[in-house]
Amino acid sequence: MRAILTLNSGSSSLKLGLFSEGLETLALGHVDRIGRREAAMKLSGADGSPLPLPASAPDDFATNAAALHTALAAFQSAFPGLEVIAVGHRIVHGGIDHAAPERLSEPLMKELAKLAPFAPLHQPHNLAGVRAAVDTFPGTPQVACYDTAFHRGHPFVSDTFALPRRYYEKGVRRYGFHGLSYDFINGELTRTEPELHKGRVIVAHLGSGASMCAIENGQSVTSTMGFSALEGLPMGTRPGELDPGILLYMMDQEGMSASEISSLLYKESGLLGMSGISNDMRTLEGSDDPRAKEAIDYFCFRIKRQIGAMAAAMGGLDGIVFTGGIGENSARVRAQACDGLGFLGVGVDAAANAENAREIGAGEVRVLVIPTNEEIVIARAAKGVLDL
Amino acid sequence: MRAILTLNSGSSSLKLGLFSEGLETLALGHVDRIGRREAAMKLSGADGSPLPLPASAPDDFATNAAALHTALAAFQSAFPGLEVIAVGHRIVHGGIDHAAPERLSEPLMKELAKLAPFAPLHQPHNLAGVRAAVDTFPGTPQVACYDTAFHRGHPFVSDTFALPRRYYEKGVRRYGFHGLSYDFINGELTRTEPELHKGRVIVAHLGSGASMCAIENGQSVTSTMGFSALEGLPMGTRPGELDPGILLYMMDQEGMSASEISSLLYKESGLLGMSGISNDMRTLEGSDDPRAKEAIDYFCFRIKRQIGAMAAAMGGLDGIVFTGGIGENSARVRAQACDGLGFLGVGVDAAANAENAREIGAGEVRVLVIPTNEEIVIARAAKGVLDL
Repeated sequence: MRAILTLNSGSSSLKLGLFSEGLETLALGHVDRIGRREAAMKLSGADGSPLPLPASAPDDFATNAAALHTALAAFQSAFPGLEVIAVGHRIVHGGIDHAAPERLSEPLMKELAKLAPFAPLHQPHNLAGVRAAVDTFPGTPQVACYDTAFHRGHPFVSDTFALPRRYYEKGVRRYGFHGLSYDFINGELTRTEPELHKGRVIVAHLGSGASMCAIENGQSVTSTMGFSALEGLPMGTRPGELDPGILLYMMDQEGMSASEISSLLYKESGLLGMSGISNDMRTLEGSDDPRAKEAIDYFCFRIKRQIGAMAAAMGGLDGIVFTGGIGENSARVRAQACDGLGFLGVGVDAAANAENAREIGAGEVRVLVIPTNEEIVIARAAKGVLDL
Repeated sequence: MRAILTLNSGSSSLKLGLFSEGLETLALGHVDRIGRREAAMKLSGADGSPLPLPASAPDDFATNAAALHTALAAFQSAFPGLEVIAVGHRIVHGGIDHAAPERLSEPLMKELAKLAPFAPLHQPHNLAGVRAAVDTFPGTPQVACYDTAFHRGHPFVSDTFALPRRYYEKGVRRYGFHGLSYDFINGELTRTEPELHKGRVIVAHLGSGASMCAIENGQSVTSTMGFSALEGLPMGTRPGELDPGILLYMMDQEGMSASEISSLLYKESGLLGMSGISNDMRTLEGSDDPRAKEAIDYFCFRIKRQIGAMAAAMGGLDGIVFTGGIGENSARVRAQACDGLGFLGVGVDAAANAENAREIGAGEVRVLVIPTNEEIVIARAAKGVLDL
C-alpha cells in the first residue's frame, strides 16, 4: 500500500498523518511529551477509532526519531505492505524567499537552518524531524510546507515594523504563521462558499497557539502574528501583544536574561499566566475562579479588537471563520468575541453556536465554524510538488 | 500680577505656561536641546506674538533649572511684578494609585520617584523639574498632574497584559499616556458637543509621541499605549507595536544590551527609522523618497487599524477627534487614516480637511480637528486642587 506521510515535529511532540495516493486519510497520530517518562502516543484510523498500539519499550519515545519509528511500526502493523512514497513536513519558517511548498534538498536544508534565529523554539525541531525522516526513508522525496508561505504576499504596511530600515532588510518582518491552517480554510471556502471567498474574510485560528488572518479574495492581507510566534492574540502560554517596554523593564529592573524572558513568554504567560490555573480553555471554562473568567475575558476582548482592526484594514467585512481547537469547540469564546459587533453586521445565533454548527451567524456578516486540517494541506502539497 | 506657572520638564526640553488667576493664557514658552550649545528658547504672549528674549549668557540653558530661571527672567521682564502663586507640573506616571491631580509634598515626591523604573526616560526628568521649581519658589504650592490619570478607570481587560499574574500585581499594566491631552479634548467635547460627548469617541493624539484613546460617555475605556511610551502607534522615533520576539532576537542574535535596545527603540525607530530621513511628518510629506511615503503609509495604516479596534471595543463609533501637531495639521494623514472606513460611517470632506477645519466629516460619524492644550489642563488642575 503506497502512502504519503505528513510530519509536524515540535520540541517534545510529533504529529503524523498517513494518506492514500488519492489523499484519503488512512491514519493520524500524535505523540506528546517526547523524552519524558510520561510520553504518550495516540493513533487513530480513518474513522477516528483508535489504532492498536505496539507493546511499549522504555526507549520508544526517548527522542523525536524514536517516536517516529514507534509510530511507523504501528502504522505498518495496521497497514500491511505499507510503502511511504513521500513525506511532507510542516516547517514553521520559510523566511523572505519561500512562498510555496517545495522539495527538500541538502542545500535547502542548510538555507532553512539559517532561519533558526527567527524561530529558535520551532525551526530546529522541524528540521530535526526532516533529518529523522530522511534517515528512515533514504531516497524517498521529502517536501517542506511553510507556515509563513500563505502570508508572503502581504503589502509592505503589513510586512514591516517601524524600526530602522536595516532590520527589514535583514528579515525582521511580520511573517505571520498558522499558514497551513489558513490555506486549508481558504481552500474550503473556495470549494463550498465561492461568493464569500471572493469577499473579505477574517479567519480566527484559536488553539494553544492562536492568530487571526484577514483574507481578501483568497489573499492574506494582514495577520496578528508577526516576527515570532509570541505576537498578536494571547495564547495558552504566550502573551500575544506586549509592550516592548516590559522587556526592557525585565532586563533592567529584574536582571532577567534573554533565555529567562524567553521561557517566561513562551511557557508561563497567556491563559496560564493570567489564570494561574491552566493553559487549557476547557479547564478555564469549567472553573469558578474569577481569574479563569478574567483570562477568558481578556482572550475574547483581544479577538474582538482584532476583528475591528482587520475589518478596517480590508475596508469592510463579509465573513468570520472560527477554527482550531478553541475556535471549533468553544461556543462561549465565539459568542463573547462577537458580542457588541452588531454595528459591523456581526451577530451570533445562540442555538446554532451552542451546537458548534457550521453556520452560526445571525447578521449580514457570515459567521462560520470550520474544523481545520493542516495534515491534508501538507499531504496535498507533497502530492502536488512531486506530481504524484 | 499673580499667576499660575505650568511646567513640563523633559530630558532636554522644558515647556512653560503662564496663566492668570482667571486662567487666561499670559505666555507660553519652549526650551529645546537643554545642555547643548544649540539650546534655544521661544516665548510668546497671549496673542502668539514672540516675547523679547533676555541677552543670552553661555550657562543660560546648561541645565533644566538654568533654563527655568532664564525663562522666568524673561517672563518677569514682560510682566512686571509677576508673582507665581502656584506651579503645576506634568508628571508622566502616577502609577496604580494616583488617578487625579494633587498637591506635591516630600512624601509624594518619594513615592513618585519609585515609579521611575516604569518610565525611566521621563519620570526622573519630570521630578527634577519639580525639584527646580521648589528651589526657585520655596513655599509656593506645587501640583502634580499625571498623564496616566485619565486612563485609571480602564476595565481589567484594557489594564492587563497576558503575563503571570504577579506582574499585574507589581504594576506592569496598560497605563496609557497623553492623559492631559485627552482630558482637554474631553472637556472641549463636554462644552461644545454635549451630545457627542455622551457617545463613543476615538481621540487620536498624533504628535512626535502618538497614541489613541477610546472615550465612552467621557470615560477612557482603552488606549493604544500601555506600560511604556513605546507601545501602540508608530511615532517620530519610537516603533509602537512591536513583536516581543524581536527584542529576544536583538538580545540573543545581536548581543544587544538593555540600554542599546532602549536607545534604538526610543531614538532611532518610528518614522525616522523607517524613512531614514526624518522624524518630522512635515519633512516626510515634502519628500519624494519612496521610503518617506512608506513611513507615512505605515503610520496611517496603524491608525486605521486602531480606529477599527477601538470601535469594536466600544461596540460602535460616534466620532473621531484628531489632535496633536500631526493630527491638527496633516490633512494627508487624516484623509489616509480614514480612507476605506465608509463601512463604519466614517468619511472625510476633502475641502474641509485641506483647510484643517474643525469639522471635516462627510459621513454619519463626526470627524473633528481640535487643537489640544495640555498647559491649560495643568493650570486648571493647579487652581482646582489649591482652591485658588
